[in-house]
Amino acid sequence: MRIAALCGSLRTGSYNQALLEAAIERGAAQGLEIVQAQIREFPLFNQDLEADPIPAVAEAKRIIQSADAILLVSPEANYSVPGVLKNAVDWLSRPFRDPTLIGRPMAVIGASTGYMGTIRAQLAWRQMWHFFNAPVFSGAEFVLPMAASLIDEDGRLSDTATLERLDAYLAALAEWVARYGSPS
Amino acid sequence: MRIAALCGSLRTGSYNQALLEAAIERGAAQGLEIVQAQIREFPLFNQDLEADPIPAVAEAKRIIQSADAILLVSPEANYSVPGVLKNAVDWLSRPFRDPTLIGRPMAVIGASTGYMGTIRAQLAWRQMWHFFNAPVFSGAEFVLPMAASLIDEDGRLSDTATLERLDAYLAALAEWVARYGSPS
Amino acid sequence: MRIAALCGSLRTGSYNQALLEAAIERGAAQGLEIVQAQIREFPLFNQDLEADPIPAVAEAKRIIQSADAILLVSPEANYSVPGVLKNAVDWLSRPFRDPTLIGRPMAVIGASTGYMGTIRAQLAWRQMWHFFNAPVFSGAEFVLPMAASLIDEDGRLSDTATLERLDAYLAALAEWVARYGSPS
Amino acid sequence: MRIAALCGSLRTGSYNQALLEAAIERGAAQGLEIVQAQIREFPLFNQDLEADPIPAVAEAKRIIQSADAILLVSPEANYSVPGVLKNAVDWLSRPFRDPTLIGRPMAVIGASTGYMGTIRAQLAWRQMWHFFNAPVFSGAEFVLPMAASLIDEDGRLSDTATLERLDAYLAALAEWVARYGSPS
Repeated sequence: MRIAALCGSLRTGSYNQALLEAAIERGAAQGLEIVQAQIREFPLFNQDLEADPIPAVAEAKRIIQSADAILLVSPEANYSVPGVLKNAVDWLSRPFRDPTLIGRPMAVIGASTGYMGTIRAQLAWRQMWHFFNAPVFSGAEFVLPMAASLIDEDGRLSDTATLERLDAYLAALAEWVARYGSPS
Repeated sequence: MRIAALCGSLRTGSYNQALLEAAIERGAAQGLEIVQAQIREFPLFNQDLEADPIPAVAEAKRIIQSADAILLVSPEANYSVPGVLKNAVDWLSRPFRDPTLIGRPMAVIGASTGYMGTIRAQLAWRQMWHFFNAPVFSGAEFVLPMAASLIDEDGRLSDTATLERLDAYLAALAEWVARYGSPS
Repeated sequence: MRIAALCGSLRTGSYNQALLEAAIERGAAQGLEIVQAQIREFPLFNQDLEADPIPAVAEAKRIIQSADAILLVSPEANYSVPGVLKNAVDWLSRPFRDPTLIGRPMAVIGASTGYMGTIRAQLAWRQMWHFFNAPVFSGAEFVLPMAASLIDEDGRLSDTATLERLDAYLAALAEWVARYGSPS
Repeated sequence: MRIAALCGSLRTGSYNQALLEAAIERGAAQGLEIVQAQIREFPLFNQDLEADPIPAVAEAKRIIQSADAILLVSPEANYSVPGVLKNAVDWLSRPFRDPTLIGRPMAVIGASTGYMGTIRAQLAWRQMWHFFNAPVFSGAEFVLPMAASLIDEDGRLSDTATLERLDAYLAALAEWVARYGSPS
């Protein structure tokens, strides 16, 4: 099964990027090929340009359209979703009726430096996703609070207990994706 | 009283920009000097760059810090806030403890082509704003549904009944800002 | 397929009850046996009593546990879910790990006297339902705004266009329930 | 200053009731007279009865109408607000235009047995409160996670660090209520 993943943080040494890389590595063992679609080059969304987006947007659409599901790896910014990732979603959702997101199964995970582990952002992502008439993974939840203490000096998520939680999450996700397959 | 306004749509002929321009015009009669802070040039937020943002970000911060309140003029995108405007808010909120948004009174209005008039986006903006420990205007609500039918060929909001609703909203906003003044 | 339905309004001549009755009638044609679980007799939730709830609660649990999915027919109260229905859900969700709601597919519809048709309440219901690790129907949306004008003097939803919208919603729901079956 | 408080848990030995009792005790030192309005006897809301509610509802309305602000002491139930407390709010908000809640400043705190300390419920309460055109306290946030470990065998919140956090919250609340006074 193929999962297209988006990371909502662009900073060097991003904890969410480290979480995504761990998911890519551990997902393989669960039969999940997780492929990151890059959003770093996306401009600010402008409807005037939606019909003919730049190559980076077209490429991300291509990756997602070839995937059985989408995985959002999202930090929380100001108690909500990061603008960087929402801007990417806005591009991927347009023009109206674009098939990239409609009906495509979605899951969301995230890392934070604080105690709450992005749960507010996850609530917001799931709530808005209804717009896409897409199933949202509800079988498990994964948050990575206190990320600074769990990511090593090489910027890798190497905490064993956390990796075991991640494995359990990915196993449940794989089972769900197998059941829901690609967009109905 | 000075209100710094941000518009969440960048397209040519934006209904939300038309709404903001109407608010600027009508606000004067209510003693509100509404000044738009431009976000069009903002790059995607990247924490690596937050300490020394580009001039467009610094200028928007300057305008908002000189204002008694912030007015978000926000479309709804995919049942939530537009990434373009959330990305701007993310820049304006950083680095941690930046004074631009903390405690500054906020109000939100918006225009939509559909029936719902951005109420989902408004719910999301108000909910996240708690993060800034800032009062959120609750004395009135303004939505502009079915905007296409209310904005004339010159791109101006010219519908009399709508302008009267806008005047009533701005009068209530002015009274509230007078009471709350600038950040406590 | 069997759907257990809960109605969030207790008043005589409730528009939401009328909507539920229309759904029961029209659902039959879609192969949906919609059975209402009564919540009128539920006391206020009290954890001291959760292990041995009154018969009305036990009976509602029995009906839902025998169903392939749950249909919430919910008014909107104060921009959110009605306390009456949330109180019922709280009873149905307890004690911890009670099987009534966990993993059981859920859908929500609602009627309102105003223009917005309970969309804020629907957002709130879907968002919280993640707690139950249950799939939430996202294939279609049904709201009944301006209900007073669509329900006849006999308290029946008789507006043809609305009934056709309801049929389309129920057909999509039936297809979804067939796919998801009962709790995984 | 007078604060009317509502507790969203009815169980014996409720952590939220213990938190409210601590707030009543510590509030006095901040010049806050916190008075609990009892909701235990409220029936399920029924619009047929809203014009002439039972004495317990009328009494709670009287207490709140004599207060400068409302304090919700709310557990989180199923990732959202407890039905018991939402049912009380529904009674207090009716009939349409009832003055009990409209414009009255509101604050929310809560206790949980888990790590998240009711933050999802608090998000939901603040979001819906916009309906009442009432200011919502945003100057500070108080959550009591892991409550079982912080409440002693007499059911009292006696943890010193927590009481100091509560004092700081109540001091900020008192300053805010002094500024906002009763409903505008």
